[in-house]
Amino acid sequence: MEDKSCSGRDAGGQMRIAVFQGPQQGGDPARNLNLLERSARQAAAAGARLLVCPEMFLTGYAIGPAAVAARAEPVDGPSAARAAGIARATGVALLYGYPERGGDGRVYNAAQLVDRDGRRLANHRKTHLFGTLDRDAFAPGQGPPTLAEVDGLKLGVLICYDVEFPENVRLLALQGAALVAVPTANMAPYTFVCRALVPARAYENHLFLAYANRCGHEDELEYLGQSCIVGPDGTDLARAGPGEEMILADVDPARIADWSRNNPYLADRRPELYGGLATPGQPA
Amino acid sequence: MEDKSCSGRDAGGQMRIAVFQGPQQGGDPARNLNLLERSARQAAAAGARLLVCPEMFLTGYAIGPAAVAARAEPVDGPSAARAAGIARATGVALLYGYPERGGDGRVYNAAQLVDRDGRRLANHRKTHLFGTLDRDAFAPGQGPPTLAEVDGLKLGVLICYDVEFPENVRLLALQGAALVAVPTANMAPYTFVCRALVPARAYENHLFLAYANRCGHEDELEYLGQSCIVGPDGTDLARAGPGEEMILADVDPARIADWSRNNPYLADRRPELYGGLATPGQPA
Repeated sequence: MEDKSCSGRDAGGQMRIAVFQGPQQGGDPARNLNLLERSARQAAAAGARLLVCPEMFLTGYAIGPAAVAARAEPVDGPSAARAAGIARATGVALLYGYPERGGDGRVYNAAQLVDRDGRRLANHRKTHLFGTLDRDAFAPGQGPPTLAEVDGLKLGVLICYDVEFPENVRLLALQGAALVAVPTANMAPYTFVCRALVPARAYENHLFLAYANRCGHEDELEYLGQSCIVGPDGTDLARAGPGEEMILADVDPARIADWSRNNPYLADRRPELYGGLATPGQPA
Repeated sequence: MEDKSCSGRDAGGQMRIAVFQGPQQGGDPARNLNLLERSARQAAAAGARLLVCPEMFLTGYAIGPAAVAARAEPVDGPSAARAAGIARATGVALLYGYPERGGDGRVYNAAQLVDRDGRRLANHRKTHLFGTLDRDAFAPGQGPPTLAEVDGLKLGVLICYDVEFPENVRLLALQGAALVAVPTANMAPYTFVCRALVPARAYENHLFLAYANRCGHEDELEYLGQSCIVGPDGTDLARAGPGEEMILADVDPARIADWSRNNPYLADRRPELYGGLATPGQPA
């Protein structure tokens, strides 16, 4: 039988990636840009070519809608320029969360991806907003899941709650993503997401998944840490504890074929039966 | 905020359910009908009103296409009549796997649901066939996921590999399923499915899930056991070991609201972004 499960996936793109879990304490943007630089240097020293940082890494997350709005910057604002410089200086591609002031004046919960030459490859706006924490501060992204390519590696980007919806990771897998990177800010009591749901997303789509969480406390939230890099068999390649930490793993898209051969989920889908998934309106 | 997450879900339908894990040894249909009767009596004595049995329970599963075809029966064949009698005699609704000879002459990997009055409520034909093991013996079902109602409980039915696709459980949740019951025959090395993927399906859809597996060996397969009844928070309400066993749990749809309040996945979906899920054709 023809193995169609890996079609659209380039076997190139092997690379070491780093996930930074932090900051332990929230929201000073200048301090967090310095932390981004230190983390990128640490990642480079460890041989990583991509560094994934948490949701709203630059500014803090649960800081209130007014503070979020005050710290929001355009996609090409001064923080983006600084981050691009860090990427160029360290030779590490960066994905980090920040509040984006859109051209429409609205504020988005965004994550920006820059390559090691400092070029912006993607800017994902969180599409699935979580409760009042998100809805009071952000407008929802309206785009499809964001796909980019870093050194030949097809990389999808989601933010936090986005990844809890199987639909979003599936859409990225169908477009050939070999790695899905997820800046997040997941808090108690949602341990199940870190421990079980994120590995399930990797397994059911045969891809690598990097989940970069915050840690410590912010407002009344207790962030869970437990950032992880998961392989296409659903097992942890690396997993952080509760505190500030960097984890590393080697991502090799060629391994995807090993895991998709016996249960080729993508090829075995029956999209002609799935019309109900894309039908607007809540269940009756 | 209006809680839309539970719309379409009747808070009624609380019941104790039983999952039979077995048989330890495969394929004598007469013996398995007797086993069905003993299991139904045992479930009734334990206060259960629904008994879920594994995939191809009546005949064995990995017995080869010729044996499967020889043992296939119409949906209202003699085995169905015997099962209906067992349901009436014990007062327990039954869901069990068997090879169905369709009106079109084809053989389907099916599961039949009869209520305690012996009426057939549903007959699900496995839609997602697993490798040559299924494809050499069965035609694929062409229907949507199967939904029925047992004593006020909205019950979805999938078979084995079907449940590994998030699309199928989601479609049932969108139709209001409070419980998804899954006759299965899951074998080594797919432990991840029993341990992590099945709980993830319950969690991401806020529903109960009963996963009834075979155990022991058949042909070259080592069935994993590990049948489970999982709650809408993803935790095990009951889990079997590796051998022949019955497990029990109380399913209370009212508990779904507790778990869907904080992360109302169904209400927070963005179906207008999911068109790609229902588009035929493999990824380019």
